[in-house]
Amino acid sequence: MRAGGISRDTLQHAAAEIAQAIDAAFDQLLPLPADARLRLYEAMRHATIGGGKRMRPLLVYATGNLFNVSFDSLVRVGLAVECIHVYSLVHDDLPAMDDDDLRRGKATVHKAFDEATAILTGDCLHDLAFEVLVDPLTYADPFVRCDLVRALAVSSGPSGMAGGQMMDLEASKSGFDIQSVTRLQQLKTGALIGFCVEAGAILGRVPPEGRGSLRGYAHDIGLAFQIADDLLDVEGNAELAGKAVGKDAAAGKETFVSLLGVERAREQASMLVDQAKAHLRSYGAEADLLRAIADYVVERDR
Amino acid sequence: MRAGGISRDTLQHAAAEIAQAIDAAFDQLLPLPADARLRLYEAMRHATIGGGKRMRPLLVYATGNLFNVSFDSLVRVGLAVECIHVYSLVHDDLPAMDDDDLRRGKATVHKAFDEATAILTGDCLHDLAFEVLVDPLTYADPFVRCDLVRALAVSSGPSGMAGGQMMDLEASKSGFDIQSVTRLQQLKTGALIGFCVEAGAILGRVPPEGRGSLRGYAHDIGLAFQIADDLLDVEGNAELAGKAVGKDAAAGKETFVSLLGVERAREQASMLVDQAKAHLRSYGAEADLLRAIADYVVERDR
Repeated sequence: MRAGGISRDTLQHAAAEIAQAIDAAFDQLLPLPADARLRLYEAMRHATIGGGKRMRPLLVYATGNLFNVSFDSLVRVGLAVECIHVYSLVHDDLPAMDDDDLRRGKATVHKAFDEATAILTGDCLHDLAFEVLVDPLTYADPFVRCDLVRALAVSSGPSGMAGGQMMDLEASKSGFDIQSVTRLQQLKTGALIGFCVEAGAILGRVPPEGRGSLRGYAHDIGLAFQIADDLLDVEGNAELAGKAVGKDAAAGKETFVSLLGVERAREQASMLVDQAKAHLRSYGAEADLLRAIADYVVERDR
Repeated sequence: MRAGGISRDTLQHAAAEIAQAIDAAFDQLLPLPADARLRLYEAMRHATIGGGKRMRPLLVYATGNLFNVSFDSLVRVGLAVECIHVYSLVHDDLPAMDDDDLRRGKATVHKAFDEATAILTGDCLHDLAFEVLVDPLTYADPFVRCDLVRALAVSSGPSGMAGGQMMDLEASKSGFDIQSVTRLQQLKTGALIGFCVEAGAILGRVPPEGRGSLRGYAHDIGLAFQIADDLLDVEGNAELAGKAVGKDAAAGKETFVSLLGVERAREQASMLVDQAKAHLRSYGAEADLLRAIADYVVERDR
C-alpha cells in the first residue's frame, strides 16, 4: 500500500523513530528529584512518556527534512511543541474544563494524581517548552531561537491554542455557525500544527516570504485533522482512541460533523488533504513524508 | 523619613511611575477582541490591570538603572515578569489549590468569572510573558533576549516558582523543618525575584560572573519578603492586604513564623535586609533605590 509516494511502512517507520526519540527526550528532561517535588515530576512523566501519536514532532521532523536540518534540532523542537500539546491536554481534561478521565489510554493526570498537581504539571510543561526551545543546543544562532520562541508563544497563547479553547468553551453556550467553528479550530488545533511546519522552515532558514506554501499545507491539514477528530468522536471507538468519544454531541457542541453531516464532512476533509498536497507541488520526493502525513490525518482510526 | 539613602517619597515616586507604566502596558497588550474570546480578555484585564504592588517590575527597573538600561526595555521586562506573577496568582487562587476568593482587593478570577476561564487566563498570561520578552522591542540583540527567555523559563518552572508551589502543597501534608521551608520559599517566591534582578543585569550586559553580589541581594530580599509575608499572614489586616490572612495557620502549614516565632522571624528578616544591602557595597548612590526596596520589603503593611 502506498501513501503519498512513500509506503505506509516508511511513514510508520519515521513515526516510530520520532516517537522513540521524544520518549527518550522526556525521560532525560524529567529525572525524579529527591525532594517534595517528586509527585510533580511523576505526574509530568505520567502525562508525557509513552503515549500519543507524536504527530506534531513528526510534522516538525518532516518539514525540517526538506531543508536538511539536523535530527537533534528537530527532536528538540518536537519536544518543545509536545510539552505545549501535553500541557494543553492536561489542563483541558480538568473537571472545570472538559472533565475527562481517560487520555491516551491512561487515567488523566487529575484522576491519577489530583487537580492541583494537574494544574502545576501543565504549568511546568509550559515553561519547559520555552526552556528547551531557547537552549543553544536547539540551534546555535540566537536569531533562529528567538524566532522559534516568538512563533511558539503566539501559536499557543490567546491568539492561538488557548484562545481557541476559550472559544470552544463558549461554543457549548451558544450556537456556532460553520465560520465560527472553522475559526475556533484554526486557533485551537490549527495554530500549533502551523507552528510545527513553520518551525521546520525557521530551522531551515527559509525567510518568512518563502513559507507561504508550507503555511497553506499546515492550514489545510490542520482543518482536515479536526474534521477527522469530529468524525472519530461520532463514529470512533473509545478503546482505540484512548479517550472518551461521543462527547461533543452530549455537550450540545456544534462541530464540523453536526453542521455539515457525516458525508459532507468526510468529503470536505478529503478535499482539504488534496489541497494540502497541492501546496507541496514545488517540492519533490523530499516532501513525500509530508504528503503521507496529510493522507494519514484523515485515514487514522485514533 | 529616609530609607536606604533616598527619601521614602523617592521610593514611592519610582513605584508609582512603574505601576502606571505597567498598567498602561497591560492595557495596550490586552485590547478586547470582537469574538468569543471576549470573556478571556476581560478576565486577563481583571487580573492584571490596576492592582498589586508591582514590586517585581520595580526591581527590574531599579537593577537596570545601575547600568543605564532604557526605560522602555525595563518596562517590557517588568511586564513579562508581572504576566508570570499574575498567572501564578490566578492559578494558585483556584479551589483545587489555595482556594482564595479575594486578591488585590478584588474577587479572584475564578470567582468573578469561572474556573475554566481562570485556568485559561493563567495559561494565556504565561504565553504572553514569553511573547513580550522575545520581541525585538524588548532589546535588539537576540543573545540578550534568549538569555532573558531562558532565565524566566527556569525561574518560573519546576526548578523555580511552580516547583515551589508544589512543595507548598506537600507542606500542608507533612511537617516541614526550617531548611525545607527555606528551600520551598527560595523556589516559590525567591526564584522570580532573582529573575528580576538578574534581568536588570542581563539587560546591562553584565557577564554571569559579575552578577554574584546582585544575586546575593536578590536571595536575601527574597527570603526577607517571604518572612514579612508570613508575619502579615499572622498579624496583618485583610482589608489592607487585599487578600485573606491567617490562612497558613488554618491550613496547618509550617512557615517561618510558626517555626521561629514572631520575634525571631522579625529579627531574621531584619538581618537579611542588612545583609542584602551589604551586597550592594560596591555600588554608590545609583543603588539607593535597591537599598530602599530592601527596607520596604520588611516595613510594608500589605
